[in-house]
Amino acid sequence: MSEPGVQPEFDCLAVIGVGLIGGSFALDARTHGLVGRTIGVSRSRQSRDTCLERGIVDAFTHDRAEAVAQADLVFIAAPVGATGEIMREIAPAVRPEAVVTDAGSTKVRVMTCAREHLAGRCAFVGGHPMAGSEQSGPGAARHGLFRGRTYVLTPDPDTPGDAVARLARLVEALGSTVVVCGAEEHDRIVGATSHLPHLVAAALAGSLAHAGLDPEQVRLLSGKGLRDSTRIAAGEPELWSDIFSENLANLRGPLDLLRERLAAMLEAIEMQDEARLQALLAEAAAFRKGLD
Amino acid sequence: MSEPGVQPEFDCLAVIGVGLIGGSFALDARTHGLVGRTIGVSRSRQSRDTCLERGIVDAFTHDRAEAVAQADLVFIAAPVGATGEIMREIAPAVRPEAVVTDAGSTKVRVMTCAREHLAGRCAFVGGHPMAGSEQSGPGAARHGLFRGRTYVLTPDPDTPGDAVARLARLVEALGSTVVVCGAEEHDRIVGATSHLPHLVAAALAGSLAHAGLDPEQVRLLSGKGLRDSTRIAAGEPELWSDIFSENLANLRGPLDLLRERLAAMLEAIEMQDEARLQALLAEAAAFRKGLD
Repeated sequence: MSEPGVQPEFDCLAVIGVGLIGGSFALDARTHGLVGRTIGVSRSRQSRDTCLERGIVDAFTHDRAEAVAQADLVFIAAPVGATGEIMREIAPAVRPEAVVTDAGSTKVRVMTCAREHLAGRCAFVGGHPMAGSEQSGPGAARHGLFRGRTYVLTPDPDTPGDAVARLARLVEALGSTVVVCGAEEHDRIVGATSHLPHLVAAALAGSLAHAGLDPEQVRLLSGKGLRDSTRIAAGEPELWSDIFSENLANLRGPLDLLRERLAAMLEAIEMQDEARLQALLAEAAAFRKGLD
Repeated sequence: MSEPGVQPEFDCLAVIGVGLIGGSFALDARTHGLVGRTIGVSRSRQSRDTCLERGIVDAFTHDRAEAVAQADLVFIAAPVGATGEIMREIAPAVRPEAVVTDAGSTKVRVMTCAREHLAGRCAFVGGHPMAGSEQSGPGAARHGLFRGRTYVLTPDPDTPGDAVARLARLVEALGSTVVVCGAEEHDRIVGATSHLPHLVAAALAGSLAHAGLDPEQVRLLSGKGLRDSTRIAAGEPELWSDIFSENLANLRGPLDLLRERLAAMLEAIEMQDEARLQALLAEAAAFRKGLD
């Protein structure tokens, strides 16, 4: 399956948590020949069957220590709240030359956990692929999930540069754009650009569920606008509850701004201040067009 | 260009305001042979050139009365705020057998205007194609814009059933699902399902424009979630300021619900009430999945 001329960047990839993100990472790394072999780790029997049937991994085990003992790249794809415990568990078995990374949506706590559990044992490079889907599980894993997306790496100042460079090369080979930044800066920005939109989409969908409307009428009398603006609200409640709690400090400020903005727009409508309302809408339109 | 076996439903379609919606309607009606010929009406020279070059209409005029005098189907595709004035202007020239319709996003005011200006002169059937795009102008007009979309018709109780049936047949031939409902009911539902999402998307985009973030960092450190959830915020400020003002009565209630929901979610995060937060997120996810 490997591409001609591609030299594996790592000999053995262990993926702990083979869902949408972990599974897609393994699938692409394996297919492109960027890793010699891949081991999936999960306690779910169904996950195991899906992974092996779909050719996502070469081998599967429920034993994390056994997997990391063989790996020179360890990819932890678990909720941020569970990552510290996984690090603690794998620490005694991890190889000193291994690069360990994760895929958590917030980075400050993960970096703190890594300092506590992995420092001096191996190189840890925090990671956040800005890719995903409202689907989950290894059945949703797919080729090219990371292509064209930003992939943030958040090494500590004392993380060996070689570990960062090797992981960056692999990620770039998956088609991602690598951005290296500090964990605090990462969490501050995504609080506004990712966590706030998710909170808002969920609030919108949740409020419409209580608006006293007939579901069939809602389905018929709504268009792509409602579907697009609430698409991310279909995400996993456990995952997002974890993210919001984790990053409340960086969510509160942008949320205050949003609430003020909603109030300002309502006021402009109520006062029939068309010029003000159009100015607020024009600012929003300019911001959105700047993202294309 | 007409399809074999298709009998034109109307001899001559006049489209007043040949932008994204009017242009796409003319393009498809003409291509599918559902109308004998099409006349575009606009005061913009550029609009005229684009329409004729793209084959959207057979003829073009800046004179509304001249166009409607020849038409048995008149499609008014103008902002709701301008529709009453257009009706007043065309009323003396409209043919008694003509069906007049519009494409406004709110329907109560349009129906009131039609009763004032067109009653006794022709049949008026309010219309709202739940299709669109953040693009605008005849250059954005395209085939199939209405395919798979809901197209609401809001006739008055005394509108001749034949006029409704003919327009419904044409609209169905464009691939839309026709929903007939009262203007009040339409405005109440879309206040929640269309206007609220737009207000929220614009508030989200607008607040992010003021969050003190570097635009390049925002572009890099954001994914499809932000882009999808704010896509509609790129819409025309004039059009949406008009819609919000028009339908404030039906926007206020859903907006209050949304603001309460945001507050409830923030409270659950702050109180570390994970069960409550996950329940709120699960309700949102269930609502969103119900739209697919």
